[in-house]
Amino acid sequence: MRIALDVMGGDHAPQVTIEGAVMASKAYPEIEIILIGPEDVIERELAKHKDHNGFEVVHAREVIEMTDHPAQAVKTKKESSMVVGMQLLKKKEIDGFFSAGNTGGMLAAGILYLGRIRGVKRPALSALFPTMRGSTFLLDIGANADVKPDFLQQFALMGSLYAERVLKRPNPTVAIMSNGEEEGKGNEMVLEAYQLIKQLPINFMGNAEGRDLGLGNFDVIVTDGFTGNIVIKTAEGLATMTKALLKDAFKGDPLSMLAGALFMPLGFPRVKKATSADEIGGAPLLGLNGVVLVGHGSSSAYAIQNGIRAARDAVQSNIVAAITEGMSQVKVTDKEGAEVG
Amino acid sequence: MRIALDVMGGDHAPQVTIEGAVMASKAYPEIEIILIGPEDVIERELAKHKDHNGFEVVHAREVIEMTDHPAQAVKTKKESSMVVGMQLLKKKEIDGFFSAGNTGGMLAAGILYLGRIRGVKRPALSALFPTMRGSTFLLDIGANADVKPDFLQQFALMGSLYAERVLKRPNPTVAIMSNGEEEGKGNEMVLEAYQLIKQLPINFMGNAEGRDLGLGNFDVIVTDGFTGNIVIKTAEGLATMTKALLKDAFKGDPLSMLAGALFMPLGFPRVKKATSADEIGGAPLLGLNGVVLVGHGSSSAYAIQNGIRAARDAVQSNIVAAITEGMSQVKVTDKEGAEVG
Repeated sequence: MRIALDVMGGDHAPQVTIEGAVMASKAYPEIEIILIGPEDVIERELAKHKDHNGFEVVHAREVIEMTDHPAQAVKTKKESSMVVGMQLLKKKEIDGFFSAGNTGGMLAAGILYLGRIRGVKRPALSALFPTMRGSTFLLDIGANADVKPDFLQQFALMGSLYAERVLKRPNPTVAIMSNGEEEGKGNEMVLEAYQLIKQLPINFMGNAEGRDLGLGNFDVIVTDGFTGNIVIKTAEGLATMTKALLKDAFKGDPLSMLAGALFMPLGFPRVKKATSADEIGGAPLLGLNGVVLVGHGSSSAYAIQNGIRAARDAVQSNIVAAITEGMSQVKVTDKEGAEVG
Repeated sequence: MRIALDVMGGDHAPQVTIEGAVMASKAYPEIEIILIGPEDVIERELAKHKDHNGFEVVHAREVIEMTDHPAQAVKTKKESSMVVGMQLLKKKEIDGFFSAGNTGGMLAAGILYLGRIRGVKRPALSALFPTMRGSTFLLDIGANADVKPDFLQQFALMGSLYAERVLKRPNPTVAIMSNGEEEGKGNEMVLEAYQLIKQLPINFMGNAEGRDLGLGNFDVIVTDGFTGNIVIKTAEGLATMTKALLKDAFKGDPLSMLAGALFMPLGFPRVKKATSADEIGGAPLLGLNGVVLVGHGSSSAYAIQNGIRAARDAVQSNIVAAITEGMSQVKVTDKEGAEVG
C-alpha cells in the first residue's frame, strides 16, 4: 500500500514530517511511504536520520502556506505538494494522501484535482473527538460554513460508513448536533435535516447536545462546518485553560507542589494521552474520490506517524468504495414524497 | 431594593432555594428578598432555618416544571411563581426577579407578562462563561435558535452595555463568534451581522473563535442561540470528562493516589471555584423590560445566593434604562444606505 505524505504540511514541517515518516516506516513496515516536497529539503532532512531504508520521493517545488488563500493557491501553485499529491491519487499512483498543512488547501486541491464521489454535494472535514469513552467522529468541522439539509444528510451517511468500516464500530450510533435532545429542538436547518437523516438506513438516534461530545454518547455526530469548527476550537481553548488552572492548582503551598511533582510524571501523561489529537493523527476529508486525511497544524512527529497509520486504515477498509456504493443506493424523499438528492 | 426569588425554580427547589435565600439575607442585608411560591411550602422550608429575620412571601400556588412546554405553561399556569413574579416586576412592586427554573418558561413569561424594551426584537439569554482570565459574557445561549443579522446586532449592543454597566468592564471588547478570526470568515448570517455590528458605538473587535472563550480574549461574545447553547453544553460535557480523567489519573499506583489525596482538598477547590457556574449564580435575560436573571437548573444554595446578588448588581446599574437609551439612539443602515431597525 502506498501512502503519500505532504512533507511541507504543518507548523513544524519539514523537520517533524520527515521525523514522523521515519517513525512510521519502522512502526508500519508494510506501508510504502512516498514523500512529496522539494527534493533538496527532503534530502537535507532525511540526512539527519540514519535509521531508515530510504523513501520514494516525488519532487514538488512549491508550498501552499498556512496563510495562503486556499482556492487561489491551489490554482496558481500547481507544483505544490498538495496539488501533486492529489494528482497522484487521481491517477491511482498512490492509495492515500496525508497532510498536516493548510486544511482549506487540501479541500480545494481535492475538489479541483481529485474530484468528489458521484452524488456527493459537499465533502466534509471531520475529527475524531476524544471523549470519556473513546472517541466521537464529528463532521463537518469546517469545510462548509453554510449548509443545506441534504448536505447534513450526506454527512450522516458518510460518517456512519466511516465509523463502521474504518473505525470498526458495529452499527454505529449517529446523532445530529442540536440545542436540545428532544425531536423538535433545533434551528430550521437541523429540523429539516433531521427528517432527511431519519430516512437513511443507518442507526440514527436523533439529536445530540453539546455535552454528548465529552460524554462520548454517540459514535458519530453530524453538524454544519460553522458549528463544528466552533465546537472543536472551544474544546481547544478549554484544554488550554484547564492546563493553566491545574498548573496554578499545583502551586502556592508545599503539599500542592508535592501533589504536582507526583502528578506530572505519573497521572498527567495518561490524561494527555486520553485527550491528545496526536494519538489520532489525522481525520478524513470525506466525500472526495480518494483517501485524503488531514492532521492538526501543530502535529508532532508522533502525530504524523499516526496520520499515516490512519490513512492506511482508511485505504484498507475501502471507505471510498463504501461511500460510492452508499451514495448510489440512497433514495430519499422530501415532505411531499418527491425524490430528493 | 426588592429582589424576588422563584422558590420553586431549580432541580433542588424548594430546599436549596430557601437555603440560598437565607444565606443571601445574611450576606446582603441591604436586599429585601421576596419569596414567591406556595405559602405552605415556603413556611415548611423556612421552619428548617432559625437564623433569619423573616421574608416577605407572595403566594403562587402553581409551578412551571422543568418538563413543561414553556409557551403553553405560562399561558395556562397563571398562578405560577414565574407568572406572578413577572407581573410584580411589571407593576414595579419588585426591582428584580431571579429563578433557577425552566429558562424557556422565564423567557416566555417575561415576553408575555413583562414585555420587551422598546425596539428590542428578541430578548437574549446570556451566560458568564468562566475563562483563564475572569469571565466572558456570552449571548445568546439558547433563547433564539434562528436569528437574523439585526438580532445579533442588538445582542452586541445589549451585551456591551451589560458588561460595562453591570460587570464594570470599562470600554468592553465585543466580538462575534465565527469559524475563523479574519474578517470575511463566517456563515452568511455572521457576515451580515458583522457589517451591522461595525456601525454600533461599541468596542467591536471583529470575529472570535471558539478558543477565545477559554482563553478569555473578549469581554463579550455574541452568537445565535443555537450555537451558543451547543458551546455552553460542550463546555459542560468537557468539564465532566476532565473530572473523570483526573479521578482516573489519581489511581493505579500509590504515588498517584498520594498526589490525588493532596490535590483534592488543596488544589481542586481552587480549580472548581475558577470554573463553577455557582460563583456567578445567574445571568440576565437581556431585552426584557425589567431585571430578570436565570440560574442553572442544578443551582446550589450558594448559587442561589449569588443569583440574588447578581440581580441586585443589575438593578443598581440601571441596566434596563441603559439598554432603553441605547436602543433609542442606535440608527443603522443596510448595504444600500437605507435605515434599518
